[in-house]
Amino acid sequence: MSVENKAKRVAESKSVMTEMVMPNDANPMGNLMGGNLLRWMDIISSICAGKHCENQVVTVSVDNVAFKKPIHVGDIVTIEAMVTRSFNTSVEVYVEVYAADIKGHNYRRCNHAYYTFVALSTPEGKPVPVPMVIPLTDNENKLFDSAPQRRDMRLLLGGR
Amino acid sequence: MSVENKAKRVAESKSVMTEMVMPNDANPMGNLMGGNLLRWMDIISSICAGKHCENQVVTVSVDNVAFKKPIHVGDIVTIEAMVTRSFNTSVEVYVEVYAADIKGHNYRRCNHAYYTFVALSTPEGKPVPVPMVIPLTDNENKLFDSAPQRRDMRLLLGGR
Amino acid sequence: MSVENKAKRVAESKSVMTEMVMPNDANPMGNLMGGNLLRWMDIISSICAGKHCENQVVTVSVDNVAFKKPIHVGDIVTIEAMVTRSFNTSVEVYVEVYAADIKGHNYRRCNHAYYTFVALSTPEGKPVPVPMVIPLTDNENKLFDSAPQRRDMRLLLGGR
Amino acid sequence: MSVENKAKRVAESKSVMTEMVMPNDANPMGNLMGGNLLRWMDIISSICAGKHCENQVVTVSVDNVAFKKPIHVGDIVTIEAMVTRSFNTSVEVYVEVYAADIKGHNYRRCNHAYYTFVALSTPEGKPVPVPMVIPLTDNENKLFDSAPQRRDMRLLLGGR
Amino acid sequence: MSVENKAKRVAESKSVMTEMVMPNDANPMGNLMGGNLLRWMDIISSICAGKHCENQVVTVSVDNVAFKKPIHVGDIVTIEAMVTRSFNTSVEVYVEVYAADIKGHNYRRCNHAYYTFVALSTPEGKPVPVPMVIPLTDNENKLFDSAPQRRDMRLLLGGR
Amino acid sequence: MSVENKAKRVAESKSVMTEMVMPNDANPMGNLMGGNLLRWMDIISSICAGKHCENQVVTVSVDNVAFKKPIHVGDIVTIEAMVTRSFNTSVEVYVEVYAADIKGHNYRRCNHAYYTFVALSTPEGKPVPVPMVIPLTDNENKLFDSAPQRRDMRLLLGGR
Repeated sequence: MSVENKAKRVAESKSVMTEMVMPNDANPMGNLMGGNLLRWMDIISSICAGKHCENQVVTVSVDNVAFKKPIHVGDIVTIEAMVTRSFNTSVEVYVEVYAADIKGHNYRRCNHAYYTFVALSTPEGKPVPVPMVIPLTDNENKLFDSAPQRRDMRLLLGGR
Repeated sequence: MSVENKAKRVAESKSVMTEMVMPNDANPMGNLMGGNLLRWMDIISSICAGKHCENQVVTVSVDNVAFKKPIHVGDIVTIEAMVTRSFNTSVEVYVEVYAADIKGHNYRRCNHAYYTFVALSTPEGKPVPVPMVIPLTDNENKLFDSAPQRRDMRLLLGGR
Repeated sequence: MSVENKAKRVAESKSVMTEMVMPNDANPMGNLMGGNLLRWMDIISSICAGKHCENQVVTVSVDNVAFKKPIHVGDIVTIEAMVTRSFNTSVEVYVEVYAADIKGHNYRRCNHAYYTFVALSTPEGKPVPVPMVIPLTDNENKLFDSAPQRRDMRLLLGGR
Repeated sequence: MSVENKAKRVAESKSVMTEMVMPNDANPMGNLMGGNLLRWMDIISSICAGKHCENQVVTVSVDNVAFKKPIHVGDIVTIEAMVTRSFNTSVEVYVEVYAADIKGHNYRRCNHAYYTFVALSTPEGKPVPVPMVIPLTDNENKLFDSAPQRRDMRLLLGGR
Repeated sequence: MSVENKAKRVAESKSVMTEMVMPNDANPMGNLMGGNLLRWMDIISSICAGKHCENQVVTVSVDNVAFKKPIHVGDIVTIEAMVTRSFNTSVEVYVEVYAADIKGHNYRRCNHAYYTFVALSTPEGKPVPVPMVIPLTDNENKLFDSAPQRRDMRLLLGGR
Repeated sequence: MSVENKAKRVAESKSVMTEMVMPNDANPMGNLMGGNLLRWMDIISSICAGKHCENQVVTVSVDNVAFKKPIHVGDIVTIEAMVTRSFNTSVEVYVEVYAADIKGHNYRRCNHAYYTFVALSTPEGKPVPVPMVIPLTDNENKLFDSAPQRRDMRLLLGGR
């Protein structure tokens, strides 16, 4: 059975990143810059996607992201990434961001986003089929079921 | 007359960033990682917003971004940021990304995005009014006129 | 009840870091340099220690570390840190390093280490008591029981 | 007609870089270190030279640079690079540095420099002829006319 | 005579590194993080080992390291590395760390460590014999004579 | 006796930096970019100047620098900085750059430069007198004697 036919559970590729916010990650007011957070989210979600697809992946889109709660220099940022559903040669990854201070206090959910990746063969760099996602928990099922709707929105907004 | 009442032209805060893609910015296939591009776009658009607002700013949202054309190690990336319209204490910035190889060949428009910033007073960090935007060119007018529609979409998607 | 009297479970501060090995992290042969791994291990174990101690912490020692399996550019490194036992104002953290390629293949345990941290009051920077560790699993109990022996060895070697 | 015979206008390769001064770019007093500025100036002038030459380039010299006005953490630095004149296989680039605070206030010209680059064939790395420069504005003509004098001085000082 | 038979003096490969502690190297209390120091020590000791071995080298172990004196942002760190003794295909390097403030005041010895490297042939990456070390000074002789004892301890601790 | 009256020997502040050229330091052809070298030269010469002046220092000028021999990724760069002579509140530093490959082969002198620094009081940031330089060796005397001539040239070129 080839890779593309192999359905895989969400938990098999779930990935977690923890970062300490350093001075160079922040603006002059001491708040983590949004772009640095987007970069970290991209790295951990691409690691998650690569693991699910068992191939190299490239980011093809990020859905709109809102930054609601400031994160400060010295805070600890935890980012969790999990696949939601695959579509032929692409896979959607759901990313959640949590922050706390160095003492573990003021733990809070900061924001979330959906990144989409395409799997590529190496070394040709051609899109290749992606394993299907098997959702198991309620949350995984909810994200699986709502994925086509987000995909439609993405295609609609991409056409702007 | 206070800052917030001062209307300003788009050209007054237009900002341009040029970066050379280095090995650490790329994935193992030699393509610029999406998250690094999002980070650069955030920096130049926040510089543009800070100049228009004449205040510190923080990123509050990024609209969906699609990555259509790969950018390679050694390529030169040019990112242009311009304000489109302000809404009380926030301002929307339109960002366009161009790439070319080191010889200036294969010049291409890669992608674009809309970043939104809130202006903050220092050192209190409270939202403050933002100068109005005066659009002059056809393109500036088009971006100005379509801004409320993007804002509605943003609020709608933010409510997810 | 003060912080220092509060005993805490190992799981409460367990911390995980995931990193992609970039070109600048490696030597000219493409292998992750040992010092970069030691740096990542220090960051995640200090995050773990800070969470357990609910205070700022500083590294006071690292036990001997052996690097047995090479890690390559493009590999994904996962580092897990957990407290083993506390001694008055210090806490020992056990760190394990795993690596796999970008596809999730060739998953392997690479090495491990013991880092020791002292908790400091802010802003005075004076050593403060650390919560006791409650081991629950077999592995946690084994690490808890062997901690005093490692501490003795550390004091002995530190006297060199 | 080969590249080396193609005369090009200054505007065709003019390049602009914008950077926000981060804590790691500054000394302990919060001033941008001179060496970091020289590094940024080298990057943008090499991008400019590469575009004019339509080839890889390497820095062969920097004329003396004076740092007259301090630039602070959080300031926005804008660096403009333009070719002045070419000499067989080399091209001189004029670089100007401007700074302002994050609000766009206290805009000031900080310093300038002349960088010289040699164009190289790829992959041999042999010097290759460089297109001639067509100066159009008064400033471009002034820089074009004074280039041989700077070149003589450079050769004289290089002989020290 | 082949490289492996060539005995070399300690002074031939002695290497010195000087670093200024920048904000991103420090924890939120402004102290250099232990892991960053371990990384610098690894770089300079691998440079020293490469020079002695006249080959590529990889870190195979670090003996236990204690951090006794805090080093602050803005401090100047000087790290000296020297080979002590070689064992077939490996060489032990002794590293000493000194710090002072930017004015050169408060000069102090901060800590030391022993790193071990294996020399590798390129491009095969196979272990190759290492030149013998000729100790000359009292200190070099002391380090040479005590090396086998540290090696035994290392093998013992590595077996944990 | 105040600091400014204290004459100091050249050897008291001589400083050495060793760096391994990493992929991000180089252009796409694998050569160390000139600007990165200028940045390293600035750091080590400012460390040297700070030590001589026993004060914070800022770079005020760099004399013209020529890059004659390419330095490659993986090469080891050694930079030596020594004060030549002081002038009231400023001091000139002579910097020499050497490179070799990782095996210590192909050792070569690559280039040199003169950096000038002004000493500043903290926290006021006002220029303060600098200790006089006592040259001892032939080379130190030669650099001491030729310093006023370089200074005149610098003032002349700075007036351009």
